[in-house]
Amino acid sequence: MKARVFVTLKNGVLDPQGKAIGHALGNLGFEGVGSVRQGKLIEIELSETDEAKAKAALKEMCEKLLANTVIEKYDIELKA
Amino acid sequence: MKARVFVTLKNGVLDPQGKAIGHALGNLGFEGVGSVRQGKLIEIELSETDEAKAKAALKEMCEKLLANTVIEKYDIELKA
Repeated sequence: MKARVFVTLKNGVLDPQGKAIGHALGNLGFEGVGSVRQGKLIEIELSETDEAKAKAALKEMCEKLLANTVIEKYDIELKA
Repeated sequence: MKARVFVTLKNGVLDPQGKAIGHALGNLGFEGVGSVRQGKLIEIELSETDEAKAKAALKEMCEKLLANTVIEKYDIELKA
């Protein structure tokens, strides 16, 4: 089973990397670009076949390692 | 219009960061973890309302700034 985990800064947490990307896009001449936020994407292959169990394991991975839950939020997406 | 851009290393390109995450998960006692790959997630707010135009602009942003297309591939997801 394949999973995608998205880790992004919580709303309200300053994101200088996203700001830099936004400015660079403006400098390149792209118009109408509003807020830009950068996060992490982690693709994990799991041998677990049970969806509920996989989700529980992924949640634990996020809490323990993948995300700093003080400033980051995470989102889990499973693909069979 | 909101867009999510996923930038990941192409298959076959070594991903030491992903490997490190995989090892760390193993050390934490998580079993059945196969390959782990890490990429970037960029969330962009666009004032453009036409889906085709927004997609074209995002593609150009990826080619010009967001992805290093020699070693990275990108994927664009639009949300109305």
